[in-house]
Amino acid sequence: MESVIRAAQAAKGAKHKMASLSTQQKNDILVAMGNGLLEQSGNILAENARDVELAREKGRTETLIDRLTLTQERIEAMAQGLFDIAGLTDPVGEVLHGEKRPNGLLVKKVRVPMGVIGIIYEARPNVTADAAGLCLKAGNAVVLKGSSEAMNSNIAVTDAMVQAGQAAGLPQGAVSLVRDASREAAAYLMTLNEYVDVLIPRGGAGLIKTVVENATLPVIETGTGNCHIYVDKSADFDMAAEITVNAKVSRPSVCNAAESLLVHADIAGEFLPKAFALLQEKGVELRGDEVAQQYGAKPAAEEDYYTEYLDYIMSVKVVDGLDDAIAHINQYSTGHSEAIITNDYTSAKRFQNEVDSAAVYVNASTRYTDGFEFGFGAEIGISTQKLHARGPMGLPELTTVKYIIDGDGQVRW
Amino acid sequence: MESVIRAAQAAKGAKHKMASLSTQQKNDILVAMGNGLLEQSGNILAENARDVELAREKGRTETLIDRLTLTQERIEAMAQGLFDIAGLTDPVGEVLHGEKRPNGLLVKKVRVPMGVIGIIYEARPNVTADAAGLCLKAGNAVVLKGSSEAMNSNIAVTDAMVQAGQAAGLPQGAVSLVRDASREAAAYLMTLNEYVDVLIPRGGAGLIKTVVENATLPVIETGTGNCHIYVDKSADFDMAAEITVNAKVSRPSVCNAAESLLVHADIAGEFLPKAFALLQEKGVELRGDEVAQQYGAKPAAEEDYYTEYLDYIMSVKVVDGLDDAIAHINQYSTGHSEAIITNDYTSAKRFQNEVDSAAVYVNASTRYTDGFEFGFGAEIGISTQKLHARGPMGLPELTTVKYIIDGDGQVRW
Repeated sequence: MESVIRAAQAAKGAKHKMASLSTQQKNDILVAMGNGLLEQSGNILAENARDVELAREKGRTETLIDRLTLTQERIEAMAQGLFDIAGLTDPVGEVLHGEKRPNGLLVKKVRVPMGVIGIIYEARPNVTADAAGLCLKAGNAVVLKGSSEAMNSNIAVTDAMVQAGQAAGLPQGAVSLVRDASREAAAYLMTLNEYVDVLIPRGGAGLIKTVVENATLPVIETGTGNCHIYVDKSADFDMAAEITVNAKVSRPSVCNAAESLLVHADIAGEFLPKAFALLQEKGVELRGDEVAQQYGAKPAAEEDYYTEYLDYIMSVKVVDGLDDAIAHINQYSTGHSEAIITNDYTSAKRFQNEVDSAAVYVNASTRYTDGFEFGFGAEIGISTQKLHARGPMGLPELTTVKYIIDGDGQVRW
Repeated sequence: MESVIRAAQAAKGAKHKMASLSTQQKNDILVAMGNGLLEQSGNILAENARDVELAREKGRTETLIDRLTLTQERIEAMAQGLFDIAGLTDPVGEVLHGEKRPNGLLVKKVRVPMGVIGIIYEARPNVTADAAGLCLKAGNAVVLKGSSEAMNSNIAVTDAMVQAGQAAGLPQGAVSLVRDASREAAAYLMTLNEYVDVLIPRGGAGLIKTVVENATLPVIETGTGNCHIYVDKSADFDMAAEITVNAKVSRPSVCNAAESLLVHADIAGEFLPKAFALLQEKGVELRGDEVAQQYGAKPAAEEDYYTEYLDYIMSVKVVDGLDDAIAHINQYSTGHSEAIITNDYTSAKRFQNEVDSAAVYVNASTRYTDGFEFGFGAEIGISTQKLHARGPMGLPELTTVKYIIDGDGQVRW
C-alpha cells in the first residue's frame, strides 16, 4: 500500500505546479515526453518482452498477449499521440461565463484543472502514455495504476516519459505510476479521497463494476457498450443490412461495436434472412428469440440480451414496434450507443429523444462514437454515466470550473 | 426497505414522461403545485405542528425546532419558490454544440434531463418543495428522503403538491417521497443504481460524509463550508474588518459564512485588535494561535482549523504571508468559498489561481456564494466537489447531455 500512498502523495504535491504551467510549457513537456519514448524504445521493447514472456508462461490468452505486446510501430504511435495532444487546444483558463452583478461584483466562471486524476487500466501499455498526456495537457497530475501483466512495460514507458519530461519542466510527481500490481493496491487507490480528485477506470465490465462498487472517490464510468441496432418498419433494407454488418464486424472488440439487433415484426420475414446471410458470411453467430430462430439463429437466453460479447456473436430480437424497441434498449443497454434505421420522421425523433444512451443515431453505424470521429481530437474514454461527462471525453472533461469573484469591499447583510 | 424501492421504482417509471413534457406543461404543473401548497396550508400546518410537538417531546434543540417549524408565511414562501421556478429558463433541449462532420454526419450535443434525482435532506420541510420544483423544471423525476423529524410535514407537503400537480399533468411517481424515516432506508437508497441516476445530499457534514462513504450511486457533495478570510499586508483595514465581520456574523448558520480568519504577520499587531473588538462586540468567540492569543483569543486546537462552526465562533491564525495563507487554506478548507482582502495585484491573482475552492473572492464577503447572488435564479445546493458541478448549482447542473447523430447510411470500416 506504501507504493499507492507514495504515488498519490507525489501527484498531489505536483498538482499546483501543474495548474500553473502555461500552455506552451505543457506542450514542450509533451513533445519531450514523446521524444523520450522514441529514444528509449529499445529499453521499452526489452521490458515489454519480459512481460510478454511472463504472460505466455502464465498461459494468458492470445487476445491479452496481443494487447500487451509493443512493437517499434506501436511505440511510435504512442509518441505521435503525445505530439498530437500537444497540438490540441488547451481547455484551461477558458472563461465560460462572466457577469457584472448589480452590486458591482464581477463573477466569472473559469475552467481549471481537476487536480489529481487516477487512472486504473488493464493490459494495454499504450494507455500509460495516452492517459498521462491527456491529463497533463488539461493541467492535471496523474496517478497511473496498470495491470500486473504490463508492469515492466508500464515502468519503462513511465520512466522514459518522466525523465525526458522533467528535463523540459515536468513537475516532479506529476506522472506517478503505482509500482504495486496487486488488486489490493487498486482497491486502496479507490479510497484515497484526500489525494485523488477523480478516478477513471479504463477496461472491461468487471473492472468498471469493481470500481463503481468500491470507490469512495468520484468516478467516471467508461466504455462498456451493449450497443443496439433497431431496424424499423420503414428502413431501407440495404442500408440497414450494411449498417448492421458494419456495426458488428468492423471491429468486434471495441465498445462501440453493436451487440444486439432488434427488428420490427412486420419486416422480420423479409429482413432477417437477408441480414443473417450477410452476418453469417462474416462468421457471426446469431442468438435470437423464436422468430429469429426460424431464420437460423440459435436460441438466446435472457442473459444474452445483457451481454457485451466483444466477439463475432450477436443477439437478435423481433419487436412489436418502436415502443417495444425503445423499452428493450432502455432495459438491457449499458447506455453507450444505439442506432435506428428508419425513413419515418416521427420514429427517428422519438428514438433519439426516448432512448436513454450517450449517443443515439439515425441511419448510421454505432461505430462512430469516439473522440476523433466526433471531432474532439482525442479521448480518454467514453463515459456511460450521466454525471460530469457523457459520451466521448476530450480535454474539457478532464477539467472542472471555479468561480473567480472580483469586488471592491462588497458585504451582504 | 419496501417504501424505498417503491418510491425509486415509481420515479423511474415516470422519468420518460417527465423528459417529454414541454416547458409550458412543466410550468403549469409548478404553478399548480404552488397553489396546492397554498390551498392545503391548513393541513400542512397541522401536520407540521405534530412534528414540532414530537421534536419537543424528544428534547430536540431550539435550532432544529426552528428549522422544522412551518408558518403560513413560510408556506407562502415555498409556493412563491415554485412560482419563481416556473419563471426560470428551461435548460432542457439546449444544443450545446453542433457540427457537420466531413463524412456528412450531423453530430449534436444536446442538454437532456438527468432522469431520476435522489435528494437526502435534513429537518427543513421547505426543501421538499424547493428540491422537487427544481428537479421537475429540469425534466427529472425525484425521490425525496427527508428526516424522521419532518416526516408528517413532508408527507403533507408532498401530497399537496402531487395532488394539485397531477391535476395539471404531473406524471404519476414523478415526485416520490420515501415514507420510511429510518437511517437504513437512507442507506438503501444510496445503493439503488438501477433506479436513481444521481444523489444529492443536503445537510450537515455528518450526512454528507455518510453519503460519500456509502453511496454506490454518483453523488454531488454539497454545502459544507469551512470558509476563510485572508487579510493580506496591503489590505484596507476598514474594508478587511467590515468584510470579516459580515462574513462571520451576518448569518452564522449558513455554509458561506466565514469560519476562519488568516492575517499577515506584518499587520497582525495593527489589524487584530481592531477586528477582534468588532467581532467580540457581535458576540463572536475567537480561538487563535499564540499571536492571536496576545490580543485576546482563546487557544485554538488543531481541530479548530478544520471546523465549520456554523456559530458565533471563529478560528484565527497569523500567517507568514501569501504562500502560507494559500497552503493553510488548501489543507484545512472544505473547498467552498475563500476571500483575500488586498490591494496587491499579484497577491490577488495568485490567491484566486492557487486556492483550490469553488468560489475565490478578492475584496468581498464569502457570503455571496449562492445561486441568487450569482444570478442563477435558484439553486439546489452548493457543490464542493469538482465532478459535474462546482459552486452554486442551478437548473443546468440538474441535466446531463446526449449526443444526437443524424446520418444517411454512414458506416465506418
